Amino acid sequence: MTTSNRLDQRLAQIRQCMEAKGIDAVLLTDPNNSYYVSGFRAISYSRPIVYIIQRDETAYVIPDLEKEHAEQEAAADDFFIYHESAQYAERETSFTALLNTILEDRLKGCVIGLEMDLTSASLYQLVKDMGHPIKDIGEDLIAMRAVKDDDELYWIEQAGRLSDIALEASFAHLNSGMSELEFDAYGDRKLLQTVSEEFPNIIAGFENWTCSGVERSSQPHLYSSTRVFMDNDVVVHSRQVWINQYRAENERTFLLGEPTDQQKHYLQLAIDAQKAAMKTVRPGVKAKDVDMAAFRVFEQAGMSDYIQHRTGHGLGLSEHEEPYLRFDNDLVLQEGMVYTIEPGIYVPGTGGFRHSDTVIVTKDGSRRVTYFPGELEDMLF
Amino acid sequence: MTTSNRLDQRLAQIRQCMEAKGIDAVLLTDPNNSYYVSGFRAISYSRPIVYIIQRDETAYVIPDLEKEHAEQEAAADDFFIYHESAQYAERETSFTALLNTILEDRLKGCVIGLEMDLTSASLYQLVKDMGHPIKDIGEDLIAMRAVKDDDELYWIEQAGRLSDIALEASFAHLNSGMSELEFDAYGDRKLLQTVSEEFPNIIAGFENWTCSGVERSSQPHLYSSTRVFMDNDVVVHSRQVWINQYRAENERTFLLGEPTDQQKHYLQLAIDAQKAAMKTVRPGVKAKDVDMAAFRVFEQAGMSDYIQHRTGHGLGLSEHEEPYLRFDNDLVLQEGMVYTIEPGIYVPGTGGFRHSDTVIVTKDGSRRVTYFPGELEDMLF
Repeated sequence: MTTSNRLDQRLAQIRQCMEAKGIDAVLLTDPNNSYYVSGFRAISYSRPIVYIIQRDETAYVIPDLEKEHAEQEAAADDFFIYHESAQYAERETSFTALLNTILEDRLKGCVIGLEMDLTSASLYQLVKDMGHPIKDIGEDLIAMRAVKDDDELYWIEQAGRLSDIALEASFAHLNSGMSELEFDAYGDRKLLQTVSEEFPNIIAGFENWTCSGVERSSQPHLYSSTRVFMDNDVVVHSRQVWINQYRAENERTFLLGEPTDQQKHYLQLAIDAQKAAMKTVRPGVKAKDVDMAAFRVFEQAGMSDYIQHRTGHGLGLSEHEEPYLRFDNDLVLQEGMVYTIEPGIYVPGTGGFRHSDTVIVTKDGSRRVTYFPGELEDMLF
Repeated sequence: MTTSNRLDQRLAQIRQCMEAKGIDAVLLTDPNNSYYVSGFRAISYSRPIVYIIQRDETAYVIPDLEKEHAEQEAAADDFFIYHESAQYAERETSFTALLNTILEDRLKGCVIGLEMDLTSASLYQLVKDMGHPIKDIGEDLIAMRAVKDDDELYWIEQAGRLSDIALEASFAHLNSGMSELEFDAYGDRKLLQTVSEEFPNIIAGFENWTCSGVERSSQPHLYSSTRVFMDNDVVVHSRQVWINQYRAENERTFLLGEPTDQQKHYLQLAIDAQKAAMKTVRPGVKAKDVDMAAFRVFEQAGMSDYIQHRTGHGLGLSEHEEPYLRFDNDLVLQEGMVYTIEPGIYVPGTGGFRHSDTVIVTKDGSRRVTYFPGELEDMLF
């Protein structure tokens, strides 16, 4: 299927959702959702960008500096530009004024669909003040994006393979005395070199979060720091790699020097919980079944008090997306869904213990896209 | 001034804004604003975090996995936790339900301040549906954050110095045949090594955007790719470095092989426009004066049609923040403001031309925090 066909299909799908909800026009502002439907993604900080989907046409509202980029890549019938140079002072220079005009004119009387969790309160208020009824379209996009097509799966698999290569490079240079950020950097450089060799003219990137030592590893979510690895540290290294917009996640907990028996026991539990969760996965099981499979491993060991987070999250275009593998999520897994499996326990004074791998739901089970070794004996340095 | 005093001062300042606007409680969701006032910043994807500021107390609404982190770092009187493990199924497991309870109980009858441009439509609707009047507090935080204190300026200067070191490393390895991402990677590794040597136990990071060749450099805002540098390329290399949360930006346009006279002329114009803008800066001038100083250089050369963006943006905690150096911004510059100066022109078929440096407004002028050489002769390779 060509890119253009894929985008047409997604547009048709979102228009079915609009039809079902009585929405006349959708205003997308989330960069991932916009990319998913239009094929265009901007680096967006202070300049708002809106993708407008009506029943029979589409348009982008964009700052002047994205004009050429959007015209090249976006599936859109029209482009509305706002400017920020004195040269174009006589044209439209205000995003808000431009959107107001569009709402009054092109979208007159329309019921508007917004991504309620992702769009800003000010956009919501602007649309509301113009008299438009508003409905949520966010949940529809979440559901659409949760099941990946073959092209998306291809890139997620590449991201997974590349993340393995990055981890291999970081671990090859591991030594006590290096900082968390230096450990990350070895993986980064190998990743960027490899992707440059293998994939001409493509965009790619990464994010890392490495937490070393008993105190930092006990906190699941911290930025990598210049803290230096020391003997007997527990280290949780997390990496996401993205290529052509699609992501994989790869995380390993490792033990330096002479870990205590308790630390080895807890890491083994995290490994066992991850395996139990992985075994559960196939189309038809619920998100909560996967979470509970991991939970029971910790519970049987008397360690369930130390669980701080769900077993995993979907990923693809976003760092976190559906399906969320939570004990209370009745979502039924389908072929083509992608998520992390990363049960963990965090024991104050002892450390944090969590591996994360990225998994695709297949026709009759699942397959991993990350394979970096993670048995206990692989994790002792 | 200690961190704790600084946070107290900011809290007092925001409470003055609340008083003036008749706001009883502020709900902050932007990670930068929350960090600015509370000293705590989480890595936040799918789990909402809210910092609540009342006239006489403060609280955080956080997911379980941020509990220890928040209790260590956040200036908050209370912590409301929501859970996502079956172990805690009997406690609060829904962010929305938890916030609803807080709005009904602790914040009963309160006028609520929200960051309208940064908070989600669904949070806005939730607060509205609970019957609370809503006012915007975003503009007050923008104004507070626009003027940096000595501690913030210290970290911005360190970020600037580190960005120079990164650029030096990238340029030292520059050769035709390397990819944009490989060029970035040399700077990354040197940066992370240097920051590890110089600053123990600190967080730091970076972002790069490198656009090479006539076509890509003509588009101001693209992700770095695996496109390989070729003879006679125009390359725009952009880097932001952050340390201890604070950022500097450093960008250079360079010419490989044998550039045309036109390309050299355009780069010289961008350099001249940047210098003209820099010379304009001192307390009391308006943001638009700086923009127009750059504009006039391009205009006099007959090139103002090719300007696609303003002359610069503030920075600090965020990639882009006030003051925006736009032709229509009457904001008066004050000592302690920090922004980029980066006028550029983008000429289809010829390339894009833009340097960016980070500048602090001083008592009687300005000083740069980025010094990487940028004269035309420095930029020919």
